[in-house]
Amino acid sequence: MADNGSLDDFLASAVDAARKAGEVDLVTETDKACEDLIFNHLKKLYPTHKFIGEETTAAFGTTELTDEPTWIVDPLDGTTNFVHGFPFVCVSIGLTIGKVPTVGVVYNPIIDEAPRLGGLRLTLSAGTKRDKLTVDATTNRLNSLLFKVRSLRMSGSCALNLCGIACGRLDLFYELGFGGPWDVAGGAVIVKEAGGLVYDPSGEDFDITSQRVAASNPLLKDAFIEALKQSE
Amino acid sequence: MADNGSLDDFLASAVDAARKAGEVDLVTETDKACEDLIFNHLKKLYPTHKFIGEETTAAFGTTELTDEPTWIVDPLDGTTNFVHGFPFVCVSIGLTIGKVPTVGVVYNPIIDEAPRLGGLRLTLSAGTKRDKLTVDATTNRLNSLLFKVRSLRMSGSCALNLCGIACGRLDLFYELGFGGPWDVAGGAVIVKEAGGLVYDPSGEDFDITSQRVAASNPLLKDAFIEALKQSE
Repeated sequence: MADNGSLDDFLASAVDAARKAGEVDLVTETDKACEDLIFNHLKKLYPTHKFIGEETTAAFGTTELTDEPTWIVDPLDGTTNFVHGFPFVCVSIGLTIGKVPTVGVVYNPIIDEAPRLGGLRLTLSAGTKRDKLTVDATTNRLNSLLFKVRSLRMSGSCALNLCGIACGRLDLFYELGFGGPWDVAGGAVIVKEAGGLVYDPSGEDFDITSQRVAASNPLLKDAFIEALKQSE
Repeated sequence: MADNGSLDDFLASAVDAARKAGEVDLVTETDKACEDLIFNHLKKLYPTHKFIGEETTAAFGTTELTDEPTWIVDPLDGTTNFVHGFPFVCVSIGLTIGKVPTVGVVYNPIIDEAPRLGGLRLTLSAGTKRDKLTVDATTNRLNSLLFKVRSLRMSGSCALNLCGIACGRLDLFYELGFGGPWDVAGGAVIVKEAGGLVYDPSGEDFDITSQRVAASNPLLKDAFIEALKQSE
């Protein structure tokens, strides 16, 4: 298959890679082994493409995102959930072209679910930082937002939260300070393909390298940004 | 089967009733229909027992909990989750004898899961009340607790949170002001059978009618109560 295959080819390859990783007994394999498996699958098909993975980055430092076609992979999003059997874990694979997320696959091997189309339901993450500034900011925002929403969920997987927006299971999602582009590269495409919007919580354009993301359907965007501003 | 059957009989009957309710196409049936199905199944077996159900209570007012054997049923815990396909919903069936939860079944028909044995993972609920006093108290507690835990999850089902404690998926759970005894009657038994503790968040004995619950393994109880006190 040529490196400049169609987007459909890219998507099919990503689905194959995600399912392959999902079949691995994740209990005994490491994140790194899964990432290698996905990278090997895709590198064989697209040898000139670039690759950014959570595990590779953790081991060898940051790889700069360029305009080249770049596969961005989180082999296991929701690691804490996974270790403890909480069924929100997924393989996330995204492809950026010119830095724009263009192909995305998010696959939950536990409930064998891919996104499907579907009061306000907000989902967010309490993150992993526990310094006073971050925790205070998190709970202050939460205090302000709770007055405006019916339900609050925390699933522990950024990629599956984005899919929740895409399929209508959730209405509003934001997260500040998540791990890296692998958390959003797949899910951001799926939200957009479903007709949803992915944007910076400030209302500015989404920047995949910024570790800031918000998502909703188009009708809710303005009100959500306003609510987030009031919650600062 | 005699009304004074063994606890094993009671448990088998509750499992049958929960699975029967789980087979119903919950999308088209109402909570009430599921509750009727469960009640009918159990009343046929135990005609002299008492019954308390979330739906019946909503329709006809509170039924007082007595010392008689009493089946307490929530036909669909996690209703908001259910409506939106978030896979944390369950049928919860508990039996109290002398007001003590004695038999409990919590069944998640979506992931077809019953509890199995297994940094600190805290789960809680933001509840449904949105007055300033409640929301401020909720986020203040959260602020204090976030400094002490690694992960925070909100699943939207009180009964499944209790099962999360029972199977080791979660470490700490508390909820204040939930709907009624049907939210905890099944799960409280399962926590205790698994060797966990169910108690009032103040550290006092658990009272199934108080709409206050905390749960953890025995080693964490004192530290959790202390943390909850500090968070007030």
